[in-house]
Parts: sequence; structure tokens; C-alpha cells
Amino acid sequence: MDNQPTIHSLLRTVDWKNNKVVMIDQTKLPNELVFVEYSDYNDVASAIRNLVVRGAPAIGVSGAFGLALASLQSTATTKEQLLSDLEKARKILFETRPTAVNLAWGLEQIMNAAKKGNTVQEIRDLIMNTAKQMAEDDIKINMTMGKHGSQLFNDNDTIMTHCNAGSLATVAYGTALGVIRATKEAGKNIKVIATETRPVQQGSRLTAFELKHDGFDVSLIPDTAVGYTMANKLVNKVVVGADRVLRTGHVYNKIGTYQVALMAKQHGIPFYVAAPLSTFDMKSNPEDVIIEQRKSTEVTQTGDKKTAPDGINVINPAFDMTPPELISGIITEAGVATAPYEESIQKLLEAKK
Amino acid sequence: MDNQPTIHSLLRTVDWKNNKVVMIDQTKLPNELVFVEYSDYNDVASAIRNLVVRGAPAIGVSGAFGLALASLQSTATTKEQLLSDLEKARKILFETRPTAVNLAWGLEQIMNAAKKGNTVQEIRDLIMNTAKQMAEDDIKINMTMGKHGSQLFNDNDTIMTHCNAGSLATVAYGTALGVIRATKEAGKNIKVIATETRPVQQGSRLTAFELKHDGFDVSLIPDTAVGYTMANKLVNKVVVGADRVLRTGHVYNKIGTYQVALMAKQHGIPFYVAAPLSTFDMKSNPEDVIIEQRKSTEVTQTGDKKTAPDGINVINPAFDMTPPELISGIITEAGVATAPYEESIQKLLEAKK
Repeated sequence: MDNQPTIHSLLRTVDWKNNKVVMIDQTKLPNELVFVEYSDYNDVASAIRNLVVRGAPAIGVSGAFGLALASLQSTATTKEQLLSDLEKARKILFETRPTAVNLAWGLEQIMNAAKKGNTVQEIRDLIMNTAKQMAEDDIKINMTMGKHGSQLFNDNDTIMTHCNAGSLATVAYGTALGVIRATKEAGKNIKVIATETRPVQQGSRLTAFELKHDGFDVSLIPDTAVGYTMANKLVNKVVVGADRVLRTGHVYNKIGTYQVALMAKQHGIPFYVAAPLSTFDMKSNPEDVIIEQRKSTEVTQTGDKKTAPDGINVINPAFDMTPPELISGIITEAGVATAPYEESIQKLLEAKK
Repeated sequence: MDNQPTIHSLLRTVDWKNNKVVMIDQTKLPNELVFVEYSDYNDVASAIRNLVVRGAPAIGVSGAFGLALASLQSTATTKEQLLSDLEKARKILFETRPTAVNLAWGLEQIMNAAKKGNTVQEIRDLIMNTAKQMAEDDIKINMTMGKHGSQLFNDNDTIMTHCNAGSLATVAYGTALGVIRATKEAGKNIKVIATETRPVQQGSRLTAFELKHDGFDVSLIPDTAVGYTMANKLVNKVVVGADRVLRTGHVYNKIGTYQVALMAKQHGIPFYVAAPLSTFDMKSNPEDVIIEQRKSTEVTQTGDKKTAPDGINVINPAFDMTPPELISGIITEAGVATAPYEESIQKLLEAKK
């Protein structure tokens, strides 16, 4: 990575240091940059649940590091005992964010690696090496995805993004924001519009923070101003991340993505999704995917300040579904999938094998 | 109004009682329902300036009641002295919200009435009666608009609304929420979905509050969940207010209205606008209308809590434009305008004359 000097200046969202998991506490952003350390996998589970760490690739690697902690915490003396302890930890970690396919994937990678060991020490080493490799691979994949994606963007583009699919959603560099970083690194002059992304405000707290931190020309809008900015020609491309992509090209991403895509279509603005192949779910159909509903206080208060009457009903889905007909291309580390998606996604996955 | 018993239970945003102006302090909502009383017009001016009362029709009537207080406070013994005192008060009241058309209009109505009196007592009586009549007219218009609008809604409808076009924006009853109230009063069982309406959160702070207060089944959603609720068939009608309606049927309303309308169109959901004829601007073309840009802190902080990095660029338009092809009908006190709008709006205005 010596020819990619910008990576060194970026924040590392999740890391493994001295047998501890180190994370940026994203709930403290943008006001404070605080790093937290965990030596108990239950605390990693809480961190995932409480959005200390969020973003599909970042929680995949966090889950893997969580299992690495569990392997150290276990007092097992036999392979069977250790695998049983790991299975218990896997379940607790998985249940924190059941919609995110990367979390299940990250945990499965570690469980598969663990099963290859014969002794407790061998298993611990295998888990540690696998988890560290996943973190490194994440960065490499993002940079490759960025290179593919950057070819879709032009000099003087203003690119809208929703939520945070950046350094702070991955181990580093980002998926959607990785594409934006690679476009700038390719010498193209670009501007970015970040949507606030209520209710958790990943756009204002995280995307605006990390892009400003890295010297981008970034403007923030409330989610209600997406239509206005498009109708007034203030934006000419969109790129977002994904929590899950089906073989049919249906994309599950942060609540609000669907309406950004629909408005982009209406205004003839290309809408791209950047997602590593680990995000692809080749088995499920749209009707199988259950959308996580989150707690109402995310909508009814900001910090301690109440912004809605007591006891009000709230509908607070974490994700929505964007159908393939609204998507101009899905950027992966193996290339860019385009319609018809079932065919082109299959090809990318086969090329990767 | 004896045949409209429900009106008595509703919140009255601004009222005249025992020679005092009584208002709901909207800055305390949704946490506390506090009524404030003023016997000095300078306090009414402060209340308008500090958003104790907001909403175009509500501040028009508040200004009129402010002048009524000024006429009682004046120690004038001649018509000339009293008119001079009133002119001084008019200026102070007007300067609180100089761009608000309804405030200038409300003050002008009172000054014109005052000039018709010959004695101090006659002038005081004329002012009082005119101000009270303005308040009653506002409610009557809203109730008439509600009756027309209620015919467009069915039993078991779930109606989405954006921002607050309710009791709290008018003297009482509301425009868009007036239509919702009239639908319920007509015996139809309905549910309401209120969008949060960032950045100022009139939906969560005011609409959710007043509908819950009046016993409606109301659910709150973040603005990002509009597409989700429509795609999942959780809503089947939309009604919003308007800040300005052009003769062509172009509607200017709170930022985010346009995207609600576009998504409703996509999902075959009827989208209605409720607006009194005083909101219609028969002279301007869409290219003439300048959209007010508001301060960035509305987006970058909630109360004292910062939600975005320091110094971030913000695009924060107050309103957007919804084109007539997305609108199923515009509900007025003279009836419902439908496409082609230029023709049907003209007819309604002529019928009213």
C-alpha cells in the first residue's frame, strides 16, 4: 500500500492490539474522538448493539474479533469445550444485529477456521490470524472497489451519499466513501453532499466528520432536502453502501436509501451501490428478508432532549429495500454489476472464485 | 358552532379572555402544555418574535389581538391620540416577523377598522370585534375546508401528513389536520402517520402532540421512512398544508413535501393539499418564487447538542415546490380543485367572490 499514502492518515474503526479489541466510539462523534478497549466479548456484543461500532463490514470484523476474545476468555482444555464456548459467544454476537449479513459471515469465517484446529492453542492462533486477515482484506477490498467505482465518476461531479459507508463503517477507507476517495485520488475534482440520515444521524455525525477530516468539499442536508437538491440540479451522481444485496440485485441499506434512489431515477441521476461480495446473499428472496425495527427513543429524543410527546407510537425501521430497476450499477471488488443483475452478479461471483 | 361539539375540546392556539391574550407556549411543546396570558402588547410582540406562537394564520390573529391590548393600554382621550398609540404598537408588532404576510395583513385589518371609529370607546369596540371575528373566521374556514376534504377520505384510511398544518399553526382546528379532524368527526375510523419533519421537527413536536392530545391513533416516523411505509402499504392517503399555491397548482410547502408527493405518486397513493384561498398567489410563476434558506444550526445541532462537525457547509431550504402532476386535489374552503388546476383554481376563486 505504499503507493496509497492517503490511507495512513485515515482513522481505523476497529483494530486488535495487545489482546484487546480497540474501537472508535462512534456514539461520541462528531464531538469527541474517543477510542474504547474491550477484553470481554460480551462488551463487544454490547458495542455492536449500541452502535459504538456500526456499518456492515466493520461489524463483521468486530464480530470476528469478538470471537477471538471469546477464545482467550474460555477456560476450555479440549477442542470440544472451546468450540462449545465459541458457539455460545457466536450466538450472543449474532443476535445484536440480525439483519446484517456481514456479521453472520464474519462469525462463520471464524467458526470454520476454529474447527480446523486440533488443540486449544491451535484454535486460538487460527482464530486470531483469520480475524486479523479479515481486517486487512477489508481494507484491500475497499481500495479495489474504489478503483473500479472511480471510473464511473467524472471531474466536477457532485456526489450525494446517504448514511455512512465510509472508513467508519469498515475497518478503514470505506465502501461508498472508498469510491469517493478513489475518485479524488484519481485526480478528479469532486464535491459531496451528505444526507443527515435520521434518526441516528450517521450522515451528519460520521460522513460529514470523516470527509471533512480528510479535506473533502462536503455539504450537509436534512433528509427532507434530497428532492430539493436533485430538482435544483445541485447533485449529479449518488453512491451508497449496502447491508445486504440479493442475487436479484435488490439492495437492503439504511432507511431512506430507497427514497433517495427513487428521486434519483425521477431526475435522471445515476444511482450506484458500493458493496463487497461478502455483502451478497445469494439464497434469500426479497420476501424472506426481515427488516430490523429499532427502539422508538431514537426518534423521540436527541440525547436527553425529548422531541416528541410521551408514549407516542413510532415506526422506526433500520433498513429499506431498493429494487434493482432503480440501481445504475453495483460496485464490487470484482467489478461493477449492471442490469440484468441476476446474470451479472453471478458472473462477478464466479470470476472471484 | 353548537353542532360541532368537538371544537370545544380542541387546543386553541391563541384566544382572547377577560381582556387578555391567551396563547399556548409552543416553545414548551411537546414536553409541557403551558398557557401564557398577556395584558401588554409588548409581551405579545416578544411572544411572536420568540416563536411562543408560530404558523401564518396564528400570528396574523396574534398581531390583531396585540393591537386590541394596545387600545386598552392607551391613555388617549382623543381619536388622534389613540390612532397614534396604535400606530406605534403596530410597528413594534410588525417588526417581530417582517416577512410574514399574514402578520402585516392582520395588523392592517385592525388599523383599517380603528380608523372607522369616532371616539376612543368606539375604536376600542371596533378593534375588539374585528380581532375576535378574524379568529372566528379562521376556525370557520378551517372547518369548511375540513368538511370538503373529509369526503376524500374513507373509513380505515391511514393518512400521512408532513410538518404541522394543525391547530397549532392556526387559531384552532388546522388546515391539513382540520381535514383529518373532520374525517374523524364524520364517523370514519382513521389512523395518522406524522413525519418528524427535520430540521425543525414540527411533525414530532407539534403534529404528534396535538393529534395525540385529541385522541387520534398517531404514529411518528423519521423522514427517511416515508418510502418504507408506502412500499409496505402502511399508508394509503396523504394530506399536507401549503405556504403558497400558484394559479398553475404548483405548491410551496415545508421542505420534504415534494419527495413525499413523488413517493406517493410512485405507490399510487392519493396526495392532497389543504390550503385556504388566502394562501393562493395568482400572480407569480414558479421561476419567481424565491425559497428562503435558513440558518445552518437548525441542521447541525439539536438544542445545545451538536450533531455535525464544526464549520460544515449546510444546505437548508425552508420550502420546496411540488408540481401539480403529483397532486390529486387541492382542498379549499370553496371546494376541491383538481387537474387541470389553472382552470379549477380560477373557478373556485370566482365562486368565492
